[in-house]
Amino acid sequence: MQNFDFHNPTRIVFGKNRIADLNKLVPADAKVLILVGGSSAEKTGTLAEVRQALGGRTHATFSGIEPNPSYETAMQAVQQVRDGGHDFLLAVGGGSVIDAVKFIAAAALFEGDDAWHIMEKGGRNITQALPFGTVLTLPATGSEMNNGGVITRRDIGAKLPFSSRYCYPLFSVLDPTKTYTLPPQQLANGVVDAFVHTVEQYLTYPVDGRVQDRFAEGILQTLVEIGPRLLTATEPDYDDRANLVWAATMALNGLIGAGVPQDWSTHMIGHELTALYGIDHARTLALVLPALLHERRAQKQAKLLQYGERVWGITSGSNEERMDAAIAHTRSFFEAMGIPTRLSDYGLGADAIDSVIHQLQAHGMTQLSEHRDLTPAISRKVLEGAL
Amino acid sequence: MQNFDFHNPTRIVFGKNRIADLNKLVPADAKVLILVGGSSAEKTGTLAEVRQALGGRTHATFSGIEPNPSYETAMQAVQQVRDGGHDFLLAVGGGSVIDAVKFIAAAALFEGDDAWHIMEKGGRNITQALPFGTVLTLPATGSEMNNGGVITRRDIGAKLPFSSRYCYPLFSVLDPTKTYTLPPQQLANGVVDAFVHTVEQYLTYPVDGRVQDRFAEGILQTLVEIGPRLLTATEPDYDDRANLVWAATMALNGLIGAGVPQDWSTHMIGHELTALYGIDHARTLALVLPALLHERRAQKQAKLLQYGERVWGITSGSNEERMDAAIAHTRSFFEAMGIPTRLSDYGLGADAIDSVIHQLQAHGMTQLSEHRDLTPAISRKVLEGAL
Repeated sequence: MQNFDFHNPTRIVFGKNRIADLNKLVPADAKVLILVGGSSAEKTGTLAEVRQALGGRTHATFSGIEPNPSYETAMQAVQQVRDGGHDFLLAVGGGSVIDAVKFIAAAALFEGDDAWHIMEKGGRNITQALPFGTVLTLPATGSEMNNGGVITRRDIGAKLPFSSRYCYPLFSVLDPTKTYTLPPQQLANGVVDAFVHTVEQYLTYPVDGRVQDRFAEGILQTLVEIGPRLLTATEPDYDDRANLVWAATMALNGLIGAGVPQDWSTHMIGHELTALYGIDHARTLALVLPALLHERRAQKQAKLLQYGERVWGITSGSNEERMDAAIAHTRSFFEAMGIPTRLSDYGLGADAIDSVIHQLQAHGMTQLSEHRDLTPAISRKVLEGAL
Repeated sequence: MQNFDFHNPTRIVFGKNRIADLNKLVPADAKVLILVGGSSAEKTGTLAEVRQALGGRTHATFSGIEPNPSYETAMQAVQQVRDGGHDFLLAVGGGSVIDAVKFIAAAALFEGDDAWHIMEKGGRNITQALPFGTVLTLPATGSEMNNGGVITRRDIGAKLPFSSRYCYPLFSVLDPTKTYTLPPQQLANGVVDAFVHTVEQYLTYPVDGRVQDRFAEGILQTLVEIGPRLLTATEPDYDDRANLVWAATMALNGLIGAGVPQDWSTHMIGHELTALYGIDHARTLALVLPALLHERRAQKQAKLLQYGERVWGITSGSNEERMDAAIAHTRSFFEAMGIPTRLSDYGLGADAIDSVIHQLQAHGMTQLSEHRDLTPAISRKVLEGAL
């Protein structure tokens, strides 16, 4: 096992009817800015519920944080924070809103001349941030219990990650019933996003991290069991939704990755596909992962065999056959969730690969993977395998 | 799944050679009181390593916290804290030292006239505590990453639990090499303690907490795999020790019990056996648990069958046969760890049962278990099953 630090101070408030707890969770004298995405939080009544829970606290709302949240929109929110003298932010939404709020919380107090420097340094230059909480309505990214985010700058086509120890939510309210109004595509995206987050902290090389491996496998098994049911259920099942929410949160709160190697290549290649072609984040992961596992089967053999056996029950055949079967099960699972796994499904071909490789090089993503040996040439092979 | 809150702010600093990190972890201007058990921290050199890491900070040492730490000893330490003006406590040891330090941290700032009131209220009257960190040398109790402890008052033969949100360690240094000097009996106790902690948050009734169940099963599988090897290894294996430490920490940091029923009957009955007869904490758990599972097989049937299948691979036979086999495997595992599972192994008989039942009643332990229906009469049957 590798040495590690683990520290996650976010308070989780989980279950039915927990939004009312905001009245205890938000400081009594806070001047709150609520931040939301589109109009769904208003339509579903969640925003009204949040406002009621805030009681007599001063509050305003910033609306319009888009999927793959942009620097440009976030800076508008920063302006509203400053103009309004807000001292507490409350994200109501999914990973995009929460990621944006983390950036806004840091940018509002950033002392440099240009808050984009935060992204250029990956957040290492953040020294303070406004306190913030979240009300999660879309389980997927795990942003509700970690300190990182991803921000897109439209004018230069860049989608970059940042993190900081100042960017943990103070609390996150996770009410599984808030997922009842999600369309099937967003549920499917959430399952695949959480699945790939888990794989990226698990499917590398063995370091005898037995608890971490079993926790990761437990999340994957849970997603495999509940994923298809989420799509076919005629009425939402509370426990299936609760398991989805908790699995997605646990998939990226630092725990399963503590003390083990990690391989975020799939995310880094996927980010470029979103930035260039606007493909949903989770869908880019489903495009890249099966091809990446195929290309990197030599480096990942031991864990691929373990994954095949423990998650998919594959116990017979040669090593090569078992790895093929594990990758095929992964691809089939994504497709059963209604998520395509081929670039051609999006009308993309060899030209797109050239563009992605160019952007990976421009963003310094030239030494990816747990071995830091996944060069642009190998990224090209991965993408060719996804055609 | 049940509603839950989860919040665990303790920072974990895990791995080889991490004691040097104390220099960053302890506030620079702290006036530190180091607290240890017997002489082992001195003999093994750990105490010298700790003192060196503290650099120029003012520090003193309190030595003599016993296993099943006593109120009487803890209050001596409180006096030293006050006399010396210490504002930071550093526990160096196992669960007993850490539990005591939590109580000392709260008692030193307790505003009531008698700090024993803390125990009478189970910690609910704690409103502040001195900050403290830990250096773990004995993996077992999980106290290094939770907010609870158990204190024994000798003059009245009481062993009682307490907890408070003010009693989380600020940090815990977990260096698996610090377990290399432990005698086999303490390693075995640690494995059994962590195993039973996990079972008590898992083996109740199903609420479809899939992630929690799989995490619990992952800890149990890990302990089953590494436990016997810890006893037979001629040289300590780093990864086996690291897995033991992390499994024991994860077994009782609130995570696997979040959102699921819990049954702490085994602990409550075991505490009385320790208080009356001085049997090691973990050994009392090994005495009680198999008999408790047998007595409560009707209430626990669904989870007992799941436990048998997923932890022990028991898939054939009638339900009764499978439950019998799961309980038998549990008993055999404890005995393979060198830990007896019968009262008669300690020379105890029917008289001891009368005494334990008397004490359970005296301490209000009359409605135990996940159903709050485990009366003293049922505790008696459990103990009779352990004769």
